[in-house]
Amino acid sequence: MDAYDELLEILKDIDLMGQLRSLLGWDQEVMMPPKAAALRGEQIAWISRESHKKKTSSRIGELLDELDGIDGLRDIEIANIRLAREAYEKATKLPTEFVSEMARHNSKALISWTEAREKNDFSIFRDDLAKCIDFARKKADYLGYENLRYDALLDIYESGLTVARLDPLFDGLRNEVAPLIRSVTQRGESLDMSWITDNKWSRQGQERLSQRVSEAMGFDFDAGRRDASTHPFCGGPNPDDVRWTTRYSDDDPFGSLYGSMHETGHGTYEQGRPRNLDFQPAGYANGLGIHESQSRLWENQIGRSYEFCKWVLPLWKEEFPENTDGIDAEKLWKSVNMIEPSLIRVEADEATYNIHIMIRYEIEKLLISGELEVDDLPDKWDDMYEEYLGVRAEDRASGVLQDIHWAMGAIGYFPTYTLGNLYSAQLLEAAREDLPDHDSQISRGDFQPLLNWMRERVHSRGSILEPAELIEEACGSPPSPEAFVEYLKRKVARLYEI
Amino acid sequence: MDAYDELLEILKDIDLMGQLRSLLGWDQEVMMPPKAAALRGEQIAWISRESHKKKTSSRIGELLDELDGIDGLRDIEIANIRLAREAYEKATKLPTEFVSEMARHNSKALISWTEAREKNDFSIFRDDLAKCIDFARKKADYLGYENLRYDALLDIYESGLTVARLDPLFDGLRNEVAPLIRSVTQRGESLDMSWITDNKWSRQGQERLSQRVSEAMGFDFDAGRRDASTHPFCGGPNPDDVRWTTRYSDDDPFGSLYGSMHETGHGTYEQGRPRNLDFQPAGYANGLGIHESQSRLWENQIGRSYEFCKWVLPLWKEEFPENTDGIDAEKLWKSVNMIEPSLIRVEADEATYNIHIMIRYEIEKLLISGELEVDDLPDKWDDMYEEYLGVRAEDRASGVLQDIHWAMGAIGYFPTYTLGNLYSAQLLEAAREDLPDHDSQISRGDFQPLLNWMRERVHSRGSILEPAELIEEACGSPPSPEAFVEYLKRKVARLYEI
Repeated sequence: MDAYDELLEILKDIDLMGQLRSLLGWDQEVMMPPKAAALRGEQIAWISRESHKKKTSSRIGELLDELDGIDGLRDIEIANIRLAREAYEKATKLPTEFVSEMARHNSKALISWTEAREKNDFSIFRDDLAKCIDFARKKADYLGYENLRYDALLDIYESGLTVARLDPLFDGLRNEVAPLIRSVTQRGESLDMSWITDNKWSRQGQERLSQRVSEAMGFDFDAGRRDASTHPFCGGPNPDDVRWTTRYSDDDPFGSLYGSMHETGHGTYEQGRPRNLDFQPAGYANGLGIHESQSRLWENQIGRSYEFCKWVLPLWKEEFPENTDGIDAEKLWKSVNMIEPSLIRVEADEATYNIHIMIRYEIEKLLISGELEVDDLPDKWDDMYEEYLGVRAEDRASGVLQDIHWAMGAIGYFPTYTLGNLYSAQLLEAAREDLPDHDSQISRGDFQPLLNWMRERVHSRGSILEPAELIEEACGSPPSPEAFVEYLKRKVARLYEI
Repeated sequence: MDAYDELLEILKDIDLMGQLRSLLGWDQEVMMPPKAAALRGEQIAWISRESHKKKTSSRIGELLDELDGIDGLRDIEIANIRLAREAYEKATKLPTEFVSEMARHNSKALISWTEAREKNDFSIFRDDLAKCIDFARKKADYLGYENLRYDALLDIYESGLTVARLDPLFDGLRNEVAPLIRSVTQRGESLDMSWITDNKWSRQGQERLSQRVSEAMGFDFDAGRRDASTHPFCGGPNPDDVRWTTRYSDDDPFGSLYGSMHETGHGTYEQGRPRNLDFQPAGYANGLGIHESQSRLWENQIGRSYEFCKWVLPLWKEEFPENTDGIDAEKLWKSVNMIEPSLIRVEADEATYNIHIMIRYEIEKLLISGELEVDDLPDKWDDMYEEYLGVRAEDRASGVLQDIHWAMGAIGYFPTYTLGNLYSAQLLEAAREDLPDHDSQISRGDFQPLLNWMRERVHSRGSILEPAELIEEACGSPPSPEAFVEYLKRKVARLYEI
């Protein structure tokens, strides 16, 4: 097993470079002063280049050849070798210089996107975005694909994902979810949200509420942090140092709380990784779809349940006594579940959310294939929102400039959000069978049993299995949209008494 | 010049690794959650190992040989080659594995020092400190020395510094400064400091005062940050990203303000580096003595001048209106210049400060030579404070545990503080000749002329010259203690009307 041990040594170095890269990214979003952007780009380019060198070192290829076909390996060893091979093959297809150039460009694009968003001016971001798309195309060409260039990009974020697999999934969701949304909007009932809109919500109160809920969910603040950033994310170098962010608006207290629950969901996954597998790919969180299942589970399945609202209401009343006078759990529950087509993805309700993703997915396909030009993108974006959701952005910041992903070069990433929604519904359905008292636990604020279930069935399993296998092991059935659609139908029925 | 260009490429990589190392260090002190310490140690060990590998790569040796004796080089090229050679020679003497072990140990020692200090318990730090001293001895042996092991450690922080050079310097200061202190303390006059001690000083007010003074001094907050940490320091990755810290006590508002001025002094030096020499050793700040001259200049020569007190008094009154009723510039000036032997180095007055350094210097000599055992250190520390300053610590946190340096492995570092004091007095003496309106500029809060003088004569000169040469170029005379002693005598005469 000398070859295996040597492989693990190399993988440890790669992991440590990834930890540094994560810290640089977190710092850039949360702490770094503005003039430091250019030199931060140099730092990131350097670590990306070194990491790429290591990931493509021929020694890995030799060791993998040596380990090929060896019998009697344990699960973890098999997984590490499999994952190392996948990563090696992906990495060796991208030239070092290309990776470094792309990293440098993304760093620059992130700055121009931030400025464009602040100034509501797409033209500031236009050229850098066009270059991001070029980089994505070149990346796809290096990686290779069978049918569509875009397939190569999807595969980066969820192994084996293709347009052929996704199209029917989105069609299916559209067929089931679109009528639901219509049935709700056609009723023309609108909830009185004046208790939210007529009040100002102090940042301090929102911060405390986020902190208390995150602590109650089981996030360990001795092994992580909460901060503020323009675009909320969960990052940080390792399971002992998990750093999530949220953002605050004094007009809307839900954005920060549900953002916090979302990122805390990601955070608990990272903190729950199997620690005997530190520095090993088998110990990593298992792909983006499953990661998103953990965030969406806490944000939506739990955070927007009636039981959670019952538990959290007294916290709202403590932090915002004047704003919550006369509000009961039923009112809070209806307020956080209002189904209403809107412009901003991260604030969208559960029912319309996947339509936001679908729009991005369709646009990415067109951008990568060249059927849509960057100059036509902002209007195309607005047109699709009008067509599918009946709303149109009045400015670019609420339209095409709202997401950070493309500026980071993450094209092909959005669909994993929808996968996350489907997985989260399946996982909770399975957890409920083992936790008959689930509803009353949530209404008491006792989140430990559910977190423990996720720790055991998902977090501690790392990446030993492939994502689809992990879902099947945890839930007893392969990935499918059924649980999600059922969950949504039940909820809408209860909310609107349809 | 291909060899020179290739050398610069390698030096750029080394510089970028140093930038990452700086960020890791800053983050560890300011942001990192407690459980992340062990894995932070792994990250630092990795970057230290990689950096050491690069610094010791035989290619540097080959390129330096190729460049040896080439004619017609410009100053900057000569400096880069000289500095690269010095660094290469220092680095190749330390084995990679030793450097990595030492880094890992220092990371651990930093944690136990922090805990020991918090709990006032030297025994928590004892074993790690003993190991720090062992590492320092081994380091000295690897580096080599002519007379004393300790000389090898001094040389790390100021090239060419030895006990033979330092002993007379400290003797000289003692001979001149000790009588001054005695003459003041024998008068038995004590200043009424009740306006400080009888009041509470809000953290918010101290933060605002620090911020306003730092901005007025010319620190660029678009290229840097201010934060809080247990031990104040100035760090950050590069001139566009300079991060300094201070600490706040609600009993004493001077600690945070003068700490802020000190670190801002370091910060302006880093921000003023010659930007055409980014990534090149010739563009670095020039050694620790000169760095400290910039911090002490602003903290003491400026910050404790009557003219500065006149300017800053209205800011004090704005931030602390209730606490400063009836306080005038004369009272403020006397309060920040009270000569009184005390326990804490970073809060010591200008006159006694170098005695604090002298004690550490004597102790380091004894620890490295083995004449003093670690178990005897805490009492030896207290005994020396009693002997030289007439004060004795009641707990370890105010005694031997007060400084972070040894926990970081920085033994041989303290004497550069005294060098800084001497240089700062020489530099201001020279600057005054070019700035006849200096005093009235300071009393108006116009710090730009002095900063510009330092930018031109010191900051922008990077490390093109050796430290002693730079002082001679800037001041017209070589390093000497005279200016400092004269400054102190004048000040004491004016303060105490002696």
